[in-house]
Amino acid sequence: MTTTGRFTLPSEENFAEKTKELAELWGADAIRNSDGTHLDDAVLALGKKVYSAYFPTRAHNEWITLHMDETPQVYLLTRRVLAETGTVPIALMETFYDEQLTPNYDADPARYWEVVDRTTGAVVPTTDWSVDASAGVVTVINATPMHEYTVSFLAYIIWDPVEMYNHLTNDWGDKEHEIPFDIYHPATREFVFDTFAKWLEDNPATDVVRFTTFFYQFTLLFDQRHREKIVDWFGCSCTVSPAALDDFERTYGYRLRPEDFVDEGCYDSAWRVPRKAQRDWIDFLSGFARENVKRLVDMSHAAGKEAMMFLGDQWIGTEPYKDGFADLGLDAVVGSIGDGTTTRMIADIPGVRYTEGRFLPYFFPDTFHEGNDPSIEAWDNWRKARRAILRSPIERMGYGGYLSLAAKFPKFVDAVTHIADEFRDIHERTGGEAAEGELTVAILNSWGHMRSWMAYTVAHALPNKQTYSYYGILEALSGMRVDVRFISFDDVIADGVDDDIDVIITGGPVDTAYSGGDIWAKDPTLAERLRAWVRAGGALVGVGEPTSQWFQGRFFQLADVFGVDEERFQTLSVDKYFPPVTPDHFITADVPVDPAAREAWERDGYRTPLSGCGGGQGRSPLGGIDFGEAIPNTFPVDERVTLLRADHGQVQLAANEYGAGRGVYVSGLPYSAANARLLERILFWASRNEDRYAAYSSTNPECEVARFPERHWYCVVNNTDRPQSTDVTLPDGAAEHFDLAPSAIAWRAC
Amino acid sequence: MTTTGRFTLPSEENFAEKTKELAELWGADAIRNSDGTHLDDAVLALGKKVYSAYFPTRAHNEWITLHMDETPQVYLLTRRVLAETGTVPIALMETFYDEQLTPNYDADPARYWEVVDRTTGAVVPTTDWSVDASAGVVTVINATPMHEYTVSFLAYIIWDPVEMYNHLTNDWGDKEHEIPFDIYHPATREFVFDTFAKWLEDNPATDVVRFTTFFYQFTLLFDQRHREKIVDWFGCSCTVSPAALDDFERTYGYRLRPEDFVDEGCYDSAWRVPRKAQRDWIDFLSGFARENVKRLVDMSHAAGKEAMMFLGDQWIGTEPYKDGFADLGLDAVVGSIGDGTTTRMIADIPGVRYTEGRFLPYFFPDTFHEGNDPSIEAWDNWRKARRAILRSPIERMGYGGYLSLAAKFPKFVDAVTHIADEFRDIHERTGGEAAEGELTVAILNSWGHMRSWMAYTVAHALPNKQTYSYYGILEALSGMRVDVRFISFDDVIADGVDDDIDVIITGGPVDTAYSGGDIWAKDPTLAERLRAWVRAGGALVGVGEPTSQWFQGRFFQLADVFGVDEERFQTLSVDKYFPPVTPDHFITADVPVDPAAREAWERDGYRTPLSGCGGGQGRSPLGGIDFGEAIPNTFPVDERVTLLRADHGQVQLAANEYGAGRGVYVSGLPYSAANARLLERILFWASRNEDRYAAYSSTNPECEVARFPERHWYCVVNNTDRPQSTDVTLPDGAAEHFDLAPSAIAWRAC
Repeated sequence: MTTTGRFTLPSEENFAEKTKELAELWGADAIRNSDGTHLDDAVLALGKKVYSAYFPTRAHNEWITLHMDETPQVYLLTRRVLAETGTVPIALMETFYDEQLTPNYDADPARYWEVVDRTTGAVVPTTDWSVDASAGVVTVINATPMHEYTVSFLAYIIWDPVEMYNHLTNDWGDKEHEIPFDIYHPATREFVFDTFAKWLEDNPATDVVRFTTFFYQFTLLFDQRHREKIVDWFGCSCTVSPAALDDFERTYGYRLRPEDFVDEGCYDSAWRVPRKAQRDWIDFLSGFARENVKRLVDMSHAAGKEAMMFLGDQWIGTEPYKDGFADLGLDAVVGSIGDGTTTRMIADIPGVRYTEGRFLPYFFPDTFHEGNDPSIEAWDNWRKARRAILRSPIERMGYGGYLSLAAKFPKFVDAVTHIADEFRDIHERTGGEAAEGELTVAILNSWGHMRSWMAYTVAHALPNKQTYSYYGILEALSGMRVDVRFISFDDVIADGVDDDIDVIITGGPVDTAYSGGDIWAKDPTLAERLRAWVRAGGALVGVGEPTSQWFQGRFFQLADVFGVDEERFQTLSVDKYFPPVTPDHFITADVPVDPAAREAWERDGYRTPLSGCGGGQGRSPLGGIDFGEAIPNTFPVDERVTLLRADHGQVQLAANEYGAGRGVYVSGLPYSAANARLLERILFWASRNEDRYAAYSSTNPECEVARFPERHWYCVVNNTDRPQSTDVTLPDGAAEHFDLAPSAIAWRAC
Repeated sequence: MTTTGRFTLPSEENFAEKTKELAELWGADAIRNSDGTHLDDAVLALGKKVYSAYFPTRAHNEWITLHMDETPQVYLLTRRVLAETGTVPIALMETFYDEQLTPNYDADPARYWEVVDRTTGAVVPTTDWSVDASAGVVTVINATPMHEYTVSFLAYIIWDPVEMYNHLTNDWGDKEHEIPFDIYHPATREFVFDTFAKWLEDNPATDVVRFTTFFYQFTLLFDQRHREKIVDWFGCSCTVSPAALDDFERTYGYRLRPEDFVDEGCYDSAWRVPRKAQRDWIDFLSGFARENVKRLVDMSHAAGKEAMMFLGDQWIGTEPYKDGFADLGLDAVVGSIGDGTTTRMIADIPGVRYTEGRFLPYFFPDTFHEGNDPSIEAWDNWRKARRAILRSPIERMGYGGYLSLAAKFPKFVDAVTHIADEFRDIHERTGGEAAEGELTVAILNSWGHMRSWMAYTVAHALPNKQTYSYYGILEALSGMRVDVRFISFDDVIADGVDDDIDVIITGGPVDTAYSGGDIWAKDPTLAERLRAWVRAGGALVGVGEPTSQWFQGRFFQLADVFGVDEERFQTLSVDKYFPPVTPDHFITADVPVDPAAREAWERDGYRTPLSGCGGGQGRSPLGGIDFGEAIPNTFPVDERVTLLRADHGQVQLAANEYGAGRGVYVSGLPYSAANARLLERILFWASRNEDRYAAYSSTNPECEVARFPERHWYCVVNNTDRPQSTDVTLPDGAAEHFDLAPSAIAWRAC
């Protein structure tokens, strides 16, 4: 039985008949185009709501080719060149893709560029370097031999990075490159608004303007071998221009250096401990961008159309979690569903009427090719999203890409039929309400609310070796029966901890925005307030290298709360004594312990050896837990700490009583059902809510329960592609049994 | 056939007959006593040279019990105590062993103690704390709630730590504790010299005064549960006194704080990046200690006796590798042979007539008990020492402890018989000369020459989880066919690199004396000189985190030389491309590659995955190399680097051309025959001496060759307890074959 609504279908030229068929099958109430496609009249005539992708700052080469000094710009950092003598030639474009980027020789390099001696950090006087534009070379004179030099130079972005990616991925051959443009320039800005005004007139059939996106692309630069070189989904690098820099100086009273953008080669990564210049630029840039977003939104509304923003591509400057976003008047945000975390990143955005998830796979030939079964990814994507949707609903779903490709895969078509129906059914049963959260959990880092569900990320939904051990925290929380918010160290310093917060989670590698960097050494208020809060009954969970900064003989500044610190080779002369491991505990109650591992562990003693053997491991010696990348040399600060897991002379999981409150340390939390369960139990234990844990818990960690008390429903989801059985404990202690098909959801009254 | 000489035998009371028998069997020409033993007249009558252990600063409780304010002292740091209110009581001895240590309430705490707010690092005014000596408590007032406070206080050391260790290990029960004393106090100093003068008169039979040792014990403190709490074989903590502090101020023009000793709880570990106060105190203290060592030596000589120093126990202040040691006039140094490194630490000491190694096992009941075979340790100890002795001879060998224990183990007696003969045979054949070194290798760190063969060490010959991946460098070099010296960063800054150095090895964890800490950010001269030297043909080998300090976008400051840097979560947005691994190379030519591993590696591609999987590993994916503790997230700085081994998205071994010179990066080098071979090949490759490698190399890495061209001998040693075969390449390209019994040595003319 197919239901209808809440579903956006992509279509394309010459595909009307099949579009109609699939629209019915999937219950679509809206049709959209994708990058490089247009909708046929026959499709428009289906009577569905029409979304039109609109690209405000590209796809008008007729304009920008006449104004090539009005493309977006970026500060690029050359490779380091060693001075063999006093004269150092530095080729600007040696490590960049010259079809994407070209140096801006128009703005005075002496004013806008910088040459830096990277061996000292000193800026080289402009009198000591010169530019040869024809050769693309800066030559430094009076250099110190054996020092390394770099040039930070402004470059024009001459190929839209997203169109470039689509172009290369789809083999568009000699199709003209779309050149992006920067509305910071008044003429181009006027062109953009005029063009949009005309477009609105020319597209009466469009109901929803799907802005894809606005003005500034996240940082995405390619190298001389046409490979991705720099990617930062949050990166504000591609937003700069001489005019904006000059205006910034007027507004903020100080001038930004090229170094504030190239940032020693870090390009202001969101992982860096944020600096004032970085925050001020975000503030300045988003002020400008939002002002113009609002104009586009107002124009859309005036034309009787909805304004929907795509959270991706040129989303930079919109900052959906920064105060004031609601004032833009956007009707909706649509974003790519990569996993539970990115689902929540869309779903939790405040100040819009509705949100929409664009599910995966995208209908592109890299997935839809012979021999591949795209339904596997579709189901996987749905299972990840569904956990999150139950906790924080999105109002609509859809897909993107070429429908003609997808239509050739009947198993995929069936999968979407099922998923769309289930999506609507969830909405129907829950009335669009979020499931009940049993606890309130705050994620604490330097960014706080502004980067809600964006922590621990480099590229959208692409955890890697350096990130997955932390990103798993978010992914676990995204579908967990808790309410989640994001707070900053500055929030805690200014206001303490909100009364309704049950547990704070903090952690990350040292010297990052997630562990806080030198804020711990600079302002004792932070440690004071957190300690006071935990001692009074609060709960602090530290992951990886939480609160880390070498200061006064400690590395984890709240080692006293966690009961754990990390040896940084400074106190090697101090003996570390590990208390015995406690293998059975409320926190680890659902961890399957391999009997052979337990026997070996008990035989060899619970004490972990301190002396050497090869290789740090992220796996628990008792089995059952994958802690991800190992954090080497963690140790209990005293023997009162309850060690839950330790291996190879380091602590993986520890629980610590701290006054009336509790601290928990865990070395890493890659996402898995088992780790999500582990974290859930950590949260209930740390906040002394063990007695509230059982009600509506699932015995099988592969299944999760979502409860909607006002609707008198609860559901159990099978988060796997295999059949699962589980028992759900009811408040009276009785259990209800569920046998769930692969990916199934089951509803019961409560 | 037993030879005689170069051998020191321990004896004890009532053991004359067996002593005589073993002296003949082992060819002893000298007899010694041990801690707690005396020699019988019958033993003295054997006509051997007599060594008498002499303890200048203990074993005279009749004196010190009358002057309990003249024991050695130490600054102790209490545990951190959290201020719950404005008043914080801190129990001084809560984490210390009160039979070893007791607070010094005699010297004015307001002048000599310090209370520190560890949450800010601020020193608490003396008006805000008071001492209750009867309760052993310091009470802080006006404290900031939720800050942690510590007291740094002076304590008397009331039980000699070595005698304490021997006492506890040998179950000496209620035997009186020996109380140490500090010659800094004039009365005690006079007592020490008077006592020694009398002792010299009373011991005419003594030929050699074996000082065990002089005045200041290395740091060795026990905790409230009578366990080792702080151990640092190089630690100068137990050298302090109010008088010395006041004198230091007069001499150096500034006053040391208690913090200069407790050092945030690091107790001036040799792993710390050395600070001026730390270096100045070593200078001050060793000046004082040496002056008085010289007096004892002169007195010994005047009495017609040799003066021999034991390198251990109270060796602090003698500093054998610090300029001026030769001026003391010591005849000899004897030290414990723990392995090759500690053998070299003794053998390389300049300015004494001879050195002696005290081999293991020590004749104590912890080894000599029923069911144990001490000959295994004896052979193992000998094989480790022999490699080093061939490179840098010691003139004598011996054992320590209770001969009566050892005599009960006939297999052990046989082993020593063989070892002693072999030791003498080596000396005979080589004429006491060192084997030819093919290259000159310098180890570069903050300490340089002063800590020759002492790098990467916490406790003597006891590598642990944090140290073994670096300590293996020294152990490999100790028996390798190269000459070794130790140089400091300051040496390079001041004088550049000596002309005769072929290869420099540097490395260690970040922020330690072995990687250099902020010296890289503070003085560009260091990087300049090293780069210039390598570019001109030099060779730099980096281990672990060499030249590390986050500065100007680099972590390894000489990443350009190594071709490798480490991702510190600052440049996560920058793509890292790994060139294919080169499995076959001069450097890895002797690494056995597991065929299955190679097949898997070739099948899955040489590129290492960047995305996540659990656990960093120290093992090479091609097998054959154990890199020890993993250094996470190392990456090639460009694609011209030759990757020799990489795994789990990080570099383990890489070779890099750098101008006319070469750089090599290796992530860790635990000691093994295979890793010693790997390092040997690294050194020959890096210095472009590949063509000199073959001559007198051994095909089997378990065997090593030592060549004595002036004596026209070369030998091959089997470094294992198993039979080994090997071929040695001769200069003309021919090979000589050797079949070696376990532990064997074979000599051939050349």
